[in-house]
Amino acid sequence: MTQTQPALSALLARRRLGYTLEAQFYTNETIFRQDLDFIFARHWIQVGVEPDIASPGDCMIVDIGPHAIIVARDDDGGLRAFHNVCRHRGARLLHTAKTNVGNLVCPYHQWTYGLDGSLLFAAHMPEQFDATCHGLRRVHVRSLAGLLFICMAETPPDDFDAMAQTLAPYIMPHDIRGCRVAFEEDIIEHGNWKLTMENNRECYHCNAAHPELTRSIFAEGFGFAPVGAEAEAQAERFHSMVGALHRDWEQGGLPSREIEDLVDRPTGFRTERLPLEDAGESETLDTRVACRKLLGKFSEKRLGALSVWTQPNSWHHFMSDHIVSFSVFPLTPETTLLRTKWLVHADAVEGRDYQCANLTAVWRATNRQDSDLVGKAAAGIRSSGYRPGPYAPDTESLVEKFCAWYVGRLKIGLGT
Amino acid sequence: MTQTQPALSALLARRRLGYTLEAQFYTNETIFRQDLDFIFARHWIQVGVEPDIASPGDCMIVDIGPHAIIVARDDDGGLRAFHNVCRHRGARLLHTAKTNVGNLVCPYHQWTYGLDGSLLFAAHMPEQFDATCHGLRRVHVRSLAGLLFICMAETPPDDFDAMAQTLAPYIMPHDIRGCRVAFEEDIIEHGNWKLTMENNRECYHCNAAHPELTRSIFAEGFGFAPVGAEAEAQAERFHSMVGALHRDWEQGGLPSREIEDLVDRPTGFRTERLPLEDAGESETLDTRVACRKLLGKFSEKRLGALSVWTQPNSWHHFMSDHIVSFSVFPLTPETTLLRTKWLVHADAVEGRDYQCANLTAVWRATNRQDSDLVGKAAAGIRSSGYRPGPYAPDTESLVEKFCAWYVGRLKIGLGT
Amino acid sequence: MTQTQPALSALLARRRLGYTLEAQFYTNETIFRQDLDFIFARHWIQVGVEPDIASPGDCMIVDIGPHAIIVARDDDGGLRAFHNVCRHRGARLLHTAKTNVGNLVCPYHQWTYGLDGSLLFAAHMPEQFDATCHGLRRVHVRSLAGLLFICMAETPPDDFDAMAQTLAPYIMPHDIRGCRVAFEEDIIEHGNWKLTMENNRECYHCNAAHPELTRSIFAEGFGFAPVGAEAEAQAERFHSMVGALHRDWEQGGLPSREIEDLVDRPTGFRTERLPLEDAGESETLDTRVACRKLLGKFSEKRLGALSVWTQPNSWHHFMSDHIVSFSVFPLTPETTLLRTKWLVHADAVEGRDYQCANLTAVWRATNRQDSDLVGKAAAGIRSSGYRPGPYAPDTESLVEKFCAWYVGRLKIGLGT
Repeated sequence: MTQTQPALSALLARRRLGYTLEAQFYTNETIFRQDLDFIFARHWIQVGVEPDIASPGDCMIVDIGPHAIIVARDDDGGLRAFHNVCRHRGARLLHTAKTNVGNLVCPYHQWTYGLDGSLLFAAHMPEQFDATCHGLRRVHVRSLAGLLFICMAETPPDDFDAMAQTLAPYIMPHDIRGCRVAFEEDIIEHGNWKLTMENNRECYHCNAAHPELTRSIFAEGFGFAPVGAEAEAQAERFHSMVGALHRDWEQGGLPSREIEDLVDRPTGFRTERLPLEDAGESETLDTRVACRKLLGKFSEKRLGALSVWTQPNSWHHFMSDHIVSFSVFPLTPETTLLRTKWLVHADAVEGRDYQCANLTAVWRATNRQDSDLVGKAAAGIRSSGYRPGPYAPDTESLVEKFCAWYVGRLKIGLGT
Repeated sequence: MTQTQPALSALLARRRLGYTLEAQFYTNETIFRQDLDFIFARHWIQVGVEPDIASPGDCMIVDIGPHAIIVARDDDGGLRAFHNVCRHRGARLLHTAKTNVGNLVCPYHQWTYGLDGSLLFAAHMPEQFDATCHGLRRVHVRSLAGLLFICMAETPPDDFDAMAQTLAPYIMPHDIRGCRVAFEEDIIEHGNWKLTMENNRECYHCNAAHPELTRSIFAEGFGFAPVGAEAEAQAERFHSMVGALHRDWEQGGLPSREIEDLVDRPTGFRTERLPLEDAGESETLDTRVACRKLLGKFSEKRLGALSVWTQPNSWHHFMSDHIVSFSVFPLTPETTLLRTKWLVHADAVEGRDYQCANLTAVWRATNRQDSDLVGKAAAGIRSSGYRPGPYAPDTESLVEKFCAWYVGRLKIGLGT
Repeated sequence: MTQTQPALSALLARRRLGYTLEAQFYTNETIFRQDLDFIFARHWIQVGVEPDIASPGDCMIVDIGPHAIIVARDDDGGLRAFHNVCRHRGARLLHTAKTNVGNLVCPYHQWTYGLDGSLLFAAHMPEQFDATCHGLRRVHVRSLAGLLFICMAETPPDDFDAMAQTLAPYIMPHDIRGCRVAFEEDIIEHGNWKLTMENNRECYHCNAAHPELTRSIFAEGFGFAPVGAEAEAQAERFHSMVGALHRDWEQGGLPSREIEDLVDRPTGFRTERLPLEDAGESETLDTRVACRKLLGKFSEKRLGALSVWTQPNSWHHFMSDHIVSFSVFPLTPETTLLRTKWLVHADAVEGRDYQCANLTAVWRATNRQDSDLVGKAAAGIRSSGYRPGPYAPDTESLVEKFCAWYVGRLKIGLGT
């Protein structure tokens, strides 16, 4: 009554560069809806991997805030996506995460749709009823070397192909289509989706928070700047490893050098192949491959970890033996779903080629640690005592880039 | 901030005939409050049956959104209803569903009210305190042949008597006052109250969803139009049964023909006595009576099922041996209480005359199936992909009439 | 859409003296936020006792709606309070109710603060980063003879010293600093925080609701006016006890007479030492001391109960053998935390000097009874049938004073 909320455009205009966002961006219901409208309904959203829907008739459902989507493999092996809503009385068509169907049949009155979304059957409708106007509402879907993206906008951002052209050579050798999902985990984090993303965009917290992960990864690979002589020596060792290995890997046909285009395009992305510590084979507790059957045509185990990020909502680590793929879905202003998938070669057999517990140990632990930190950040940010704080210029530069991208995209959405 | 919600009056004005309502009607908090104000606080709401409060001092509480009501039998056997709120500090007077009291005593400071609502005792109040100004706030209450209705408006709709005059001859022979409640069940459905009502207003979904119910009832009795030769033969059989049985029943003193006045009056209603399948006695798994002791003065078991609907919130099935009575109460925009009561002759003894499990099997299963469908409809409707869809002109004509009534009543409430 | 909510200032202006507040004050989200802003963020809030943080490095966290506070004992034994929010990424620093620390280290990126709130360490920040601008945001904290108060306003109300000067002589003999917390209990009451306070400000309900408490306390000590000959005789007995005992106690160096200044100051308060029934020693089931080791320098057990109230949020009972201290914290518009602490002499040993069950029996039972009544009042007040009702002029005069204070403070906050 006496308080007036500054409009979103004013909040965006006054955003202080190099500082965390104001609290409303992480808590306010209206801004959350704007995030869903301007970010998630208008950009390319990474939702899964081709092995999720390998065969004709395979369907997967994805919920993004109020958006309920079906991603399907049609009878010709093509990718399809639809709103998960019957055109008759609005009932949700599919309720299970993954399923295989001949047609999509509504559980309420059995309206029946083909895998191309066309309405095939609707009892009791009159002669003049035009079924062709009542097919499922379509959603754009694309695969980037096996990573699945959807876009709910009528006209999606036109930079998908350019991104795909850049990233595909990095990803293709890991042959996602030749994989299967060995394990999948959903965590609900108690913070806004941007806190989940920001947590992922820096390794400032890694050494203290992630004892399992830092057995294999170098925090230096994610912006972490050394402080003190010991850290500087370590950083120097890391960067000389990067130099040498990039040369080796690229000569072996694996693109590895950093490409970063996070801020100034609709579909921001970044990639780099990074060395791993110790045995250097994989992101496991013993830094050795978790799966004896290597991906694609690999015979060399020490391929480091290819990191691929997309904005707004994903990151992925590709090793010689397995892939870990992370997708972020907003649920409410202060809850977020983190969906993680571990992929191995489609022919790998559990118990013989890999142990699921060993395969997933590092990232299951790391996810839990990150979820705890996101919850603690959210708890502080919703407190009246919170004020935006400064990012460390080097070590948190990629967090700043995420925020800059986000602010820029909202401004474009608002037309300001 | 950038979105403006169309006002309710604009939403009502643009409602497309023959289509489901726009999503806000099923999800929006403001429209929900309008429903409570314009529909539930101003119309005759069916809340229970006389056997709920058979004896002097019997009280029943009913919560309808934010409205908390006591319905009581006073010492002279009359019906009374009050707001369930003490006039002192506002405490809720009664907390249990049904109870018997001498007076209504507030648990906080023992202010004491008679069963006529008058304030009998209030300690510590000064001499000039006027108890007559501090009686319980009254609510209108009426019985329609044993079905209890309340109205919270100062001046209730004046069509109750006309409805009662029409419906009483249908209902009276089943002698609700001579019954007792054998079983009662509350289900919370995860959808707006209108989805619960709409689900009840068609039998398009019955054959696929209700295997237990369709052993006895004909979907054709509720608007279902036949499609194909087999269905047309079945419909013909049904309608010839209706013709023959209506004649027999009416000759036997049981009004049976359809009366429908759903749209153009405050208290919309509909009734018809319908044949049942197979043994044709009752809505049970074996289509035979569940209770050996028949209702009222009945000696014939094959009386079909008398269907009585009232708007906004009830439906009832009267058979020769038992009655099933359904009342719908909104809880939140997306949750609804469905209260079901099974009535048998007051002298029927469980174990001897009926088995409770057998008596309730069909509708307990059917309620669960409907609740599931309501939840699936609600899930789809709250999705961004939802758009209003077309009703089947015949088979869903009574759903359309419910929506038309609802839209009309809101328009009158808004004065537009 | 058709309803317009009267502004808070209009609601305050039309408040009817001697009547309960309108329903919105107990249910409305906006008014709740105004309560947090104008009452809880600008007044002295009682949050605990010095024994909660007896030693250097002891920290306690207190959450008041969206305000998250740390109260700490610094290395010099001084009291400190801060917002519980890191200045870097906003993470909550402390998560456990009470803890002992050397420094305050953020769990996210290890920014480290001294117990004076100054930023001691922040890795990766550039040379020009000014740590002195990034200390924890301070909150005022004061002790009133061992009762801890915080104030989040930049400039707190200036009447704390005057209140302390008046109350300290009453409280000091009970020697809070020489105590320890023997037991602590949090209850979530299902009503607005003002209902919790109003429930405490009268004993109209005591005789019917509190059989355990009324073994020792006289309802007459809290405004209760006698009705009828028997009650008048009891009241006369009580007031003659008060007269005699006040004389004795004050001659023995214990200030006892009532001082009440509840309405016309920012930090309203009231105190009086009151006789107890029967053995007259303590608020226990047998009215005898629960702890053999008396507080401070007491040797006399029959010191009645010193009652101390502060506004907006506390009350305390001081006996010869133990202290019971109550603090009220709003959680949501309709939920409230009641935190109760039982204090005994720091040297008292459980099992030898006292039994915890006996020490806490009366008030654990009384709290539950009050919580139930608050829930019932809240349930009625949120009903549409609620209308403000009249307070009993004498028996509820202190409730009226609480409301008058509250309304006055909101008016001042709004500048109306």
